[in-house]
Amino acid sequence: MTALSSTALSSTALSTTGRTRLGRNPDRGRGDRSALYAILDAGLICHLGVVIDGSPRVLPTGYGRLDDTLYVHGSTGASSLMAGPSQDVCVTVTHLDGLVIARSLFHHSVNYRSAVVFGRPRPVTDPDEKLAGIRAITENLTPGQWDVARRPTRKELAATSVLAIPLDEASIKIRQGDPSDDDADHALDVWAGVVPVRQTFGEPSPDPALRPGIAVPGHIARRVTS
Amino acid sequence: MTALSSTALSSTALSTTGRTRLGRNPDRGRGDRSALYAILDAGLICHLGVVIDGSPRVLPTGYGRLDDTLYVHGSTGASSLMAGPSQDVCVTVTHLDGLVIARSLFHHSVNYRSAVVFGRPRPVTDPDEKLAGIRAITENLTPGQWDVARRPTRKELAATSVLAIPLDEASIKIRQGDPSDDDADHALDVWAGVVPVRQTFGEPSPDPALRPGIAVPGHIARRVTS
Repeated sequence: MTALSSTALSSTALSTTGRTRLGRNPDRGRGDRSALYAILDAGLICHLGVVIDGSPRVLPTGYGRLDDTLYVHGSTGASSLMAGPSQDVCVTVTHLDGLVIARSLFHHSVNYRSAVVFGRPRPVTDPDEKLAGIRAITENLTPGQWDVARRPTRKELAATSVLAIPLDEASIKIRQGDPSDDDADHALDVWAGVVPVRQTFGEPSPDPALRPGIAVPGHIARRVTS
Repeated sequence: MTALSSTALSSTALSTTGRTRLGRNPDRGRGDRSALYAILDAGLICHLGVVIDGSPRVLPTGYGRLDDTLYVHGSTGASSLMAGPSQDVCVTVTHLDGLVIARSLFHHSVNYRSAVVFGRPRPVTDPDEKLAGIRAITENLTPGQWDVARRPTRKELAATSVLAIPLDEASIKIRQGDPSDDDADHALDVWAGVVPVRQTFGEPSPDPALRPGIAVPGHIARRVTS
């Protein structure tokens, strides 16, 4: 009946700590760094967890990866990001891949890929790294856009805080495949299988204020049809 | 450049507390309870935030709503759920609706609807409420499935912990519509607009062990084509 297990799992080729060690369903853990990269790079938004006044706060935000660093950003006034540097944060990226329909409600589940990253965020002050971090975040949402849109001004950069989170402590968890009903339940007259869930892009809708004669650029058009 | 603002916003018809009061982009806040229900009921998974040993942990999990109570569940061994009752948790549900492509990188954004719920989880021990909570979670993922699948046994119920989180303290945030470029940037020769993002269901894939002659039930087939 558990949709997604509620414990992080160890990944031996990643770090193993109290926060990422073996919990439930260890068979769903994966240990290689390339799998971590794949899950992070395929996501569009993450859920950033911080502790404020002792209680957790989980907020969706954009992110980007450069090698072994994850970048998130926000207005310099964003309290959650400001609270970040003094404590560890958790960044979770989840892909929901399917509804696992079992014969018994107990074995209902979902297919998914998730990455959970723990780390102490470092405020990025170096102008070059700040720009690189913003580029990584932009390109993660819309690859190719960095080369066509107007780059940030000095004032815009100053109004944006960027945090770097090292990919030192992370775990990934994957469930794929068919339902795992009890043998006795296979005789039931109940359909079982997987309903795939996908994230898709629709037809681009131009800004009403768009100047005439500007077509949807290739890097965006290609994404929609892919 | 901020993809999603990193602060929760107040919702006057919901509660307003230090955790949900006005932050960035107050225009994106919405105050009515029906909008909160709509965001929660349209979601498939949430991101549950807990504090363990002082640091945040954010994990994806299923959930369901019954009136003003949110239910989550897990194995009785799941450490995050066990850590829950002694402290507040945060449950966040996010729908990513579109990529907002602006002429300037600074105004790139995403369209989204998110709900952030704070509360002290209550372990559900009453057998009837436990079953009702599990039903809410099951039906949130696959409406109609409760009536066709085998119900939980007493043993399966005992192996499942259910937590109830009151919908007393919550905020929602919505961004919709076109990019909001600076006036001066409208003259740029750069495409701007919105690329819709949708979550869709694919063709159901039967369990290889499915008994012959069992068709995809209507409540699942209808969802795929809707």
